[in-house]
Amino acid sequence: MIPQEFAAGDTDASPVGLGLPGVGMTAFEAADDRSLLALLETAAERALRDAAVDATEIDSVHVGNMAAEAFNDRSGLANALTASLGANLASARRIENTSASGASAFRDAVDAVRSGGSAVALAVGGEKMSAADTATATEIISRITHEREYRQGITLPSFAGLAADRYLAEYGADRRDLARVAVKNHANATNNSYAQFRTPITVGDVLESSAVATPLRLYDCCPTSDGAAAIVVTADAAPVTVEACESAVGVHAIADRRDPLHIESAHAAGRAAYEMARIGPEDVDVACIHDAFTILEWLELEELGFAERGTAWTLTRDGRTAIDGDLAVNPGGGLKARGHPLGATGIAQIVELVWQLRGDVPDERSTGSPEYGLAINVAGFGNNNVCTVVGANA
Amino acid sequence: MIPQEFAAGDTDASPVGLGLPGVGMTAFEAADDRSLLALLETAAERALRDAAVDATEIDSVHVGNMAAEAFNDRSGLANALTASLGANLASARRIENTSASGASAFRDAVDAVRSGGSAVALAVGGEKMSAADTATATEIISRITHEREYRQGITLPSFAGLAADRYLAEYGADRRDLARVAVKNHANATNNSYAQFRTPITVGDVLESSAVATPLRLYDCCPTSDGAAAIVVTADAAPVTVEACESAVGVHAIADRRDPLHIESAHAAGRAAYEMARIGPEDVDVACIHDAFTILEWLELEELGFAERGTAWTLTRDGRTAIDGDLAVNPGGGLKARGHPLGATGIAQIVELVWQLRGDVPDERSTGSPEYGLAINVAGFGNNNVCTVVGANA
Repeated sequence: MIPQEFAAGDTDASPVGLGLPGVGMTAFEAADDRSLLALLETAAERALRDAAVDATEIDSVHVGNMAAEAFNDRSGLANALTASLGANLASARRIENTSASGASAFRDAVDAVRSGGSAVALAVGGEKMSAADTATATEIISRITHEREYRQGITLPSFAGLAADRYLAEYGADRRDLARVAVKNHANATNNSYAQFRTPITVGDVLESSAVATPLRLYDCCPTSDGAAAIVVTADAAPVTVEACESAVGVHAIADRRDPLHIESAHAAGRAAYEMARIGPEDVDVACIHDAFTILEWLELEELGFAERGTAWTLTRDGRTAIDGDLAVNPGGGLKARGHPLGATGIAQIVELVWQLRGDVPDERSTGSPEYGLAINVAGFGNNNVCTVVGANA
Repeated sequence: MIPQEFAAGDTDASPVGLGLPGVGMTAFEAADDRSLLALLETAAERALRDAAVDATEIDSVHVGNMAAEAFNDRSGLANALTASLGANLASARRIENTSASGASAFRDAVDAVRSGGSAVALAVGGEKMSAADTATATEIISRITHEREYRQGITLPSFAGLAADRYLAEYGADRRDLARVAVKNHANATNNSYAQFRTPITVGDVLESSAVATPLRLYDCCPTSDGAAAIVVTADAAPVTVEACESAVGVHAIADRRDPLHIESAHAAGRAAYEMARIGPEDVDVACIHDAFTILEWLELEELGFAERGTAWTLTRDGRTAIDGDLAVNPGGGLKARGHPLGATGIAQIVELVWQLRGDVPDERSTGSPEYGLAINVAGFGNNNVCTVVGANA
């Protein structure tokens, strides 16, 4: 099942091996009445407490946020947060990489520790989207696409709809198989107290929900959300370590891509991450995949070598990506059901992996005793991908 | 003259020593009709050409930009730029750190190379502020201040006015001495074809310009600008190297600071940079100081150990910071006269230092054969400071 090119082999790269001693997040909500800064503070304080690290020990703060200027009329979050945490004299900056802002901030924190510049780095991601209605949020998010496509009114859901339509036609998957991605992720979220949607749904619910971009319906799409997540990165040993965090930019205009079902940048980021971590997809026990739309879960599973092209849908159909399957995918509910506060998501994915590898999850959401976890955080419709591998120290 | 605490001494930190093989920028203008993306592309292409580096060799792109969402209704600049340069599969992200976004992006690029993650990193900063009128721009910029102070309507010019008033009263400097900062920086800009204002001004012009925040007048304040600047960072040798790039967050609310004339974070960033570069202020030959307001040039010179507290004004009065003085300050015209496209400034400062150290400036703007250059890029009113030291390889 594993494509040859992903087999772990000789490489010059060596695993990053930095400790992740503490993680934390807020429960994701459709609307949280706290300010974005308060959400970031809460997540950061939870991660620091989990790590038993005092704010004064932080050398650098890396804030992931996509669009606080547009959603919240705010700028300069990183300095406000750093000062309010009591980490004055640390360095600070915000990282924006659209819907991959969270993982990009995490990568930045990893680079800061790898470089020797920071002994303790704090990555915090968050977004407060409830300040905008859905149409405005869609408009803010659409601004990341190529100007040529943006001017034609194409939004991310429409790209996803086109890809889903093509996938179903090309590979023989059934519309109900696509719905099963959402059903699975909702089922996982019922056991996650941090998830925005904790109610199970059925294939029928998905098919009967309102149309968004044919064939995708409302329940194929992640919601808008408020929330934040945080991780401490250090050079010291910890039960879970980051083994790789690699990213790649893709062809910007979707129309310029050779194949709309091939996200080259996800493939490239995944390959680089496997090489650095010195593992292959067969070594991964649990994965957090950027399911902003159900179709993306399949496309990314294929790009990451978990299935041959055109076959990821069979994993869903056969229950192999369920919580008790060979490869548990989105055990926390994914973007679909945990929610998708843009700048928080990439960090929330890694928080979930750390919890899974430490065994800090309820039995119903446990994936056993995973050794390796992988997360992929996608900017736009594959405009950039950040792939992270974490490992448990035996 | 050098405060004892800044004397170069034993330290564990060692100079960064990464090469800066290429720099480039656009001419700064009050309004450039090109898009922000086009400005970033132009600066990047100039830096790549200067470095003789092909876009396909870039491993990571670090875009400094403060508020494209607010000024230009755009997000995701880093991916659009990276793809349009032809650097697909590089990693990319935008760094926002208010008015220090540029130097923060440069620091990020330096960290990426120091970490071993990138062999070639490209830092590009830019802003297109002409899309907003002055009142809107002031509002966008004011959002970086502490919410408590923001709600009271305090803007950055009003903080600067309060500090200037206090400085003049406390240290015996004359209002005309403050004006001389702007006169000097305009004089330098007359010889810089990249500068927004290339006309000399007099002390009388400053004193007669319209009031902004007493005692500051229009010619004490930097303009709003469009422009971009870029630098290539590599592990390979180059005529100019980055020796240190350190930053620190300050007390966020100005009202909470112990002394409104003391910017602790500038002091901390400067001290860390000197330690890492293993030099002291006496070794610096040319400096780019964040003169968003004339008063800031004095405050920062003092924090960086170029003058004892309350005495920087005498350096200006005595011509010691002029282009032919002991320490040439803002030879390119500074924010005051080169212009201040927010996200570009921190990188433009380092571009100017590289040109100075390579001797790539007209005779009228030459500072001789400088060995060390220092830049300080300030976020807000000292909410964060990034201090960079570059050195010439003999």
